[in-house]
Amino acid sequence: MSKIITISLDAMGGDDAPEIVIDGAAKAAHELSNVRFVIAGDEGKIGPLISKHKVLKNISEVIHTPDVVTADMKPSVALRQGRNSSMRLAINAVKDGKADAIVSAGNTGALMAIAKFVLKTLPGVTRPAIASIMPTVKKGKGVVFLDLGANLECSSRNLVEFAVLGSVYSRLIANQDRPKVGILNIGSEEMKGHETLREAADILEGHLQDAEYTGFAEGTDIHKGDLDVIVTDGFTGNVALKTVEGTAKMIAHMVKDSFKTSPLAYLGLPFIFPAFKKLKSRMDPRLYNGGMFLGLKGLCVKSHGGTDAVGFANAIMVAYMLAEKNFNHHVADVLSRMVHDDPDSEIEVEDDLSPQRAEEG
Amino acid sequence: MSKIITISLDAMGGDDAPEIVIDGAAKAAHELSNVRFVIAGDEGKIGPLISKHKVLKNISEVIHTPDVVTADMKPSVALRQGRNSSMRLAINAVKDGKADAIVSAGNTGALMAIAKFVLKTLPGVTRPAIASIMPTVKKGKGVVFLDLGANLECSSRNLVEFAVLGSVYSRLIANQDRPKVGILNIGSEEMKGHETLREAADILEGHLQDAEYTGFAEGTDIHKGDLDVIVTDGFTGNVALKTVEGTAKMIAHMVKDSFKTSPLAYLGLPFIFPAFKKLKSRMDPRLYNGGMFLGLKGLCVKSHGGTDAVGFANAIMVAYMLAEKNFNHHVADVLSRMVHDDPDSEIEVEDDLSPQRAEEG
Repeated sequence: MSKIITISLDAMGGDDAPEIVIDGAAKAAHELSNVRFVIAGDEGKIGPLISKHKVLKNISEVIHTPDVVTADMKPSVALRQGRNSSMRLAINAVKDGKADAIVSAGNTGALMAIAKFVLKTLPGVTRPAIASIMPTVKKGKGVVFLDLGANLECSSRNLVEFAVLGSVYSRLIANQDRPKVGILNIGSEEMKGHETLREAADILEGHLQDAEYTGFAEGTDIHKGDLDVIVTDGFTGNVALKTVEGTAKMIAHMVKDSFKTSPLAYLGLPFIFPAFKKLKSRMDPRLYNGGMFLGLKGLCVKSHGGTDAVGFANAIMVAYMLAEKNFNHHVADVLSRMVHDDPDSEIEVEDDLSPQRAEEG
Repeated sequence: MSKIITISLDAMGGDDAPEIVIDGAAKAAHELSNVRFVIAGDEGKIGPLISKHKVLKNISEVIHTPDVVTADMKPSVALRQGRNSSMRLAINAVKDGKADAIVSAGNTGALMAIAKFVLKTLPGVTRPAIASIMPTVKKGKGVVFLDLGANLECSSRNLVEFAVLGSVYSRLIANQDRPKVGILNIGSEEMKGHETLREAADILEGHLQDAEYTGFAEGTDIHKGDLDVIVTDGFTGNVALKTVEGTAKMIAHMVKDSFKTSPLAYLGLPFIFPAFKKLKSRMDPRLYNGGMFLGLKGLCVKSHGGTDAVGFANAIMVAYMLAEKNFNHHVADVLSRMVHDDPDSEIEVEDDLSPQRAEEG
């Protein structure tokens, strides 16, 4: 029998919580035979929802709390006042060794602040990053893109760490044998400036392990599918992510608009419907749901706040895979080999990989 | 009779130069009754092309030179070795008062370096920016987006100047009475960091003239059509621009793909063809052709290197309008009113608006 993976859930985070959280957990439980849940939230609300799903019956433990972190709460406030919130208790479950990973659809800033405070960063990692998968023109192939907003400004060392986090993800979860990694930059020659980017490129060229650094990438490379991982600072990454979203929405709007003003087009709809359905399923944002917080001593996945049960189930699957494949162990391994390879690097890897577990014993 | 506008053309820059340059000039000449051209390039090559177009006959003057700035030339090299290049001579024509604006489809970095060196920045402007128009969901409404790559890092003062340049463009060319201006930032509350952005916001809130500063914008706002101008540093702007391009290409590719795998869809094509044609014409990149170099003492427009004659003609139209509407005069006016409004601002506006003309006299 395969090992049991326990996921803790912040039942009260997200636009349609706790319904989509519990329905999403049920969907994931149908797919995964060895999953268990620790569910933090208001028992009066989530108890009845859980009992609706037979599949959740014997695999769920509820941690009752009436407190929640609201969507508009500042991270600093959530950290101070949310000590008994469903978000905090779900994260604590990972720190206490009761769960292997935590999933929340709540306030992103608060989740990052609390996760960082409670779980701490992995040895050898100075700052955690938010990573997501972006679709590419190559069917079934996504690119790991990070940081999406956890760090406004990044040092070369941060970018090197992001490259390690992203490439380990690509190897373990996307099954890319030797992922290709690029640093986001701009094209024109004299502009290839940012000293930070050049420094990071120098380190990655010589010392990245189990992955290949392929040079600078441009915005046009995000969706090309030639790269497996693209790293950038959180400001640029967040702008790029939101720009992709905005452009896709604009094009969808323009397509609808052009149909509206061409009455004949509706006659063609029955014929093109299957093609549009395929397209829609390929672009389904729920497929790309789940911002992974990488680089912490515990695994944490952020589901989109406005997602549905299918999207939330996908976020649970991502958390499950990270735990099952022992993501953090592999990151520590790559980092320690990089230090061995380049003793001058500033990376420091302690033996103390999972102190939260150590504290337990 | 309206005043004559003279545009100087770098006939040898761009993938399909000099053909598309001359054909583009002819197209523009058919639209504009009072335009003249100064055309710099190899007379042996451009002479026969010009004589093909009757409309160009009496309105074109050729400055012969065999030298060209190549696409892969570093800006510093182009500046040093390109003293007799078609690009340099076309820019010189503006400095010497022989032309009102210059258009080139050549090497962007070289064009910016030479234009900056020859034309210098406008009084009150510390750094020129590259601006372009991005499409929005609102029909016929674009947003002025800058900087697209001229300045890797920007001070708050640079951003304030960009806001002035962009809003004057929006008023004069896009006919927005009181343009709405936003600064590109990222969403999450605690991240609204970059001190630079906050400082720029503070200045714009109180002192922007003839336009309204509406706050921070996100990547998703670029195409929404609520804003008329969005300013950002050249690194972020270039990444966003290329990301838009990449996302649009990916979606087009996916649409084709979904048709290929749905044979029935082809039966619907005759019906949806008019709708697709409308969509295509609305997304036509040639409509958005022309990166404006704003903030220099002369007007300079960069056409996309891979465009055709229609796209090049559009770039000429943009240059023509900037000259006809006296863009630089209006920028100087707004800047001087901002200084008057806020004497503590670091903006300095000299009287000396067009020294190149003064030198002439």
